[in-house]
Amino acid sequence: MDIDAVLKRIDDDLETSLERLFALLSIPSISTDPAYDGECRRAAQWLADDFAAMGFSAEVRDTEGKPMVLAKSDGAPVAGDDKPHILFYGHYDVQPVDPLELWTEEPFKPHLVTREDGSKMIVARGACDDKGQFMGFVEAVRAILAVEGALPAPITILIEGEEESGSPSLPGFLAAAGDELKADAAFVCDTGMWDADTPAIAMSLRGLVGEEITIRAANRDLHSGQFGGPARNPNHILAKILAALHDEDGRVTVPGFYEGVVEPAAETKANWERLGLTAEEFLGPIGLKEAAGEKDRTVLEQLWSRPTLEVNGMIGGYTGKGFKTVIPGEASAKVSFRLVGEQSPAKLREAFRAFVRERVPADCEVSFAEHGGSPAFRVAEDWPMLKKGEQALKDEWGTETAMVGMGGSIPIVHSFKHKLGMDTLMIGFALEDDNVHSPNEKYDLKCFHKGIRSWARVLAAL
Amino acid sequence: MDIDAVLKRIDDDLETSLERLFALLSIPSISTDPAYDGECRRAAQWLADDFAAMGFSAEVRDTEGKPMVLAKSDGAPVAGDDKPHILFYGHYDVQPVDPLELWTEEPFKPHLVTREDGSKMIVARGACDDKGQFMGFVEAVRAILAVEGALPAPITILIEGEEESGSPSLPGFLAAAGDELKADAAFVCDTGMWDADTPAIAMSLRGLVGEEITIRAANRDLHSGQFGGPARNPNHILAKILAALHDEDGRVTVPGFYEGVVEPAAETKANWERLGLTAEEFLGPIGLKEAAGEKDRTVLEQLWSRPTLEVNGMIGGYTGKGFKTVIPGEASAKVSFRLVGEQSPAKLREAFRAFVRERVPADCEVSFAEHGGSPAFRVAEDWPMLKKGEQALKDEWGTETAMVGMGGSIPIVHSFKHKLGMDTLMIGFALEDDNVHSPNEKYDLKCFHKGIRSWARVLAAL
Repeated sequence: MDIDAVLKRIDDDLETSLERLFALLSIPSISTDPAYDGECRRAAQWLADDFAAMGFSAEVRDTEGKPMVLAKSDGAPVAGDDKPHILFYGHYDVQPVDPLELWTEEPFKPHLVTREDGSKMIVARGACDDKGQFMGFVEAVRAILAVEGALPAPITILIEGEEESGSPSLPGFLAAAGDELKADAAFVCDTGMWDADTPAIAMSLRGLVGEEITIRAANRDLHSGQFGGPARNPNHILAKILAALHDEDGRVTVPGFYEGVVEPAAETKANWERLGLTAEEFLGPIGLKEAAGEKDRTVLEQLWSRPTLEVNGMIGGYTGKGFKTVIPGEASAKVSFRLVGEQSPAKLREAFRAFVRERVPADCEVSFAEHGGSPAFRVAEDWPMLKKGEQALKDEWGTETAMVGMGGSIPIVHSFKHKLGMDTLMIGFALEDDNVHSPNEKYDLKCFHKGIRSWARVLAAL
Repeated sequence: MDIDAVLKRIDDDLETSLERLFALLSIPSISTDPAYDGECRRAAQWLADDFAAMGFSAEVRDTEGKPMVLAKSDGAPVAGDDKPHILFYGHYDVQPVDPLELWTEEPFKPHLVTREDGSKMIVARGACDDKGQFMGFVEAVRAILAVEGALPAPITILIEGEEESGSPSLPGFLAAAGDELKADAAFVCDTGMWDADTPAIAMSLRGLVGEEITIRAANRDLHSGQFGGPARNPNHILAKILAALHDEDGRVTVPGFYEGVVEPAAETKANWERLGLTAEEFLGPIGLKEAAGEKDRTVLEQLWSRPTLEVNGMIGGYTGKGFKTVIPGEASAKVSFRLVGEQSPAKLREAFRAFVRERVPADCEVSFAEHGGSPAFRVAEDWPMLKKGEQALKDEWGTETAMVGMGGSIPIVHSFKHKLGMDTLMIGFALEDDNVHSPNEKYDLKCFHKGIRSWARVLAAL
């Protein structure tokens, strides 16, 4: 492959690449809120049309939830049929935008903001997670086809629409479409750089279990003067439960919670030590100083090799303006666990539910809702694709590639391993200050641009 | 006074009394939400017009908050100038209506619902608290004027619009208008019956302190995968604080909380014992069985002579549909205390704030907002007006009047005692199942009707 010609094409085409990304970013494809179902479908169709225009055979595939986009290079010429078949995965769905009032511009009106130093960033919900990231791969493929007229290897692209809501339809889809998706390696672009100058490959991901609990006490809201004292207050019950989940040292107290946790090898720990990240450096940008969490663990250990339990949301009683002296009938919380090693999502869910049930008084009720579950993932350290990726990134960025763990979850990576029997190369260009899942999400134009170039180099190395 | 003629007039006029009440109930005068400021003013004006039509000199008086309605019998003939001057107090503001979806009909479209046994109830927000109750007194006055042509004693009517939001403008108004409001006794109709057949006079009220706390951690919402573990979660901090407020025995743990609590006299406790209310009887109608609160206290002690601390609302993180793996930047709670005896609102507020501050990590922030405060109240047991009220109620209802305590708060009653030097006769006709502060608030038509008749008898006894 004439990589220099491909890179020049990428540079020349940057403006139109950006126009395509903006068109996609302007579709509010929020998967966690049913009000946006139609927008999710619109995003899927937009992508299928774009992939078809590149010569792929592309389809929107219905599921019980949001549709999948599946595109195969059947229709596009492939130069290297003997090369490893690649399955690229991304997700077109995005996080909700609340609190909307903290956005400086509308979240679905993508635009460029220029910093004082002249560098630019793309601002919109999904700019980084994951539209900006996966479109980097797509633009690399487009440039290669434009210059070479053929792909270096067979490529299948799968873009799902439920990643932000726990990918409920994915297991069924993989089971049904397994043979169609079979490949030699998966590529995913949904992770981050080590810092603004240092690219990274993610070797591990934490798993994720989502649970919602609702405590019901009285059969109606009560006046706290008429009933305050003798009547159970579900806010109190819920607060006691949530408070009991962590001990004084930041450890999770749910019995059996740490079962299956694997301690990283000494060498891995030493590598992390060398990255030299202090709690102050990690927490400074978000306005904090002291590490919370397990007292005897470094920040990187906590993020990459330790499980956590976080209360992502809680609500009960009157939360509007002013005051209402009410004892509510119910209170609820959304809780998630991040899993590592061999921890079992099903076992943890049951242990958590037992922990909660034990703390609900006999005359009150508790109900649970499940919000997805996936175990943790770790790639084999001697996988040849890792070396190729490491070198391609080094060539593009001119610096050593950091081989890191990831605190977040990409459920499909585990499915690729266990259902389709392949490892995943996780390369991504997100920066720590991208405000992923927060107001004013952004993606550096440099990350988008060099991300495209990086993927072209990875594909050239096949 | 020809009480029989007055009572007949009340019976004959019931339908038009109800029409007037419905007109008032259809005004959504919610004081805790600034969006309803205009509706509060409209309710005030409606009342001033109605009082003026009865011959009172009536005005809407502006305050820094919601306007007051002040009506004096200057303009209406008074038969008994030597009789004790009465100040009647009520409030035209109502509670918010959320959760709106639990109302079977629109809260501000008042209507009658007929039960299977033929009895009727008035359903609307404010039907009982306090529009239906105070209009009972107003209709009694109207009937007396129609039949007798004169009032039995000078009467001043004060209807405020901020009772549900802690009456912030009331102290200033009382200080400024003190002489105008001076009277020999205050009447208030905002309390309840002992049961559907037994009238009650309230001898004591609990005080109320409202506090709102907001915990701020990171300067933005965080992705729980990228930051979960090392980053503080304000939901966890808030849950720990709220959980620590009560011990295992239901006692409040804030240091100094029980300072100023007065143990009721043995005779009073014996009276309450005789009323024979079990926890099962009290909690059954709201779907509960076991008394929460202080373990070593009966239900009536808890409600009438013990202070409480309730979390009326709490919120943090993502609480919409679905799931969002976020660590929020802040979390907040609304907390209220019910006071008894000599407990000091200011001291309790400070003790609570100190308790909270102690539990907020050094790199996080806490802020407080004050939502009103009033001490508890107790009427002198030998006040002659009590005997008159007791007899009038016995005459109307044909049964002994229960002399009770009240768990709720009516801040103005304390102000009447300490600022204007008079005691308050608290008679009310609310029933336990009136859904006060809850969806589907109602007021029995019988309570409205016999409430008017009861007040006519009380006025006749002057």
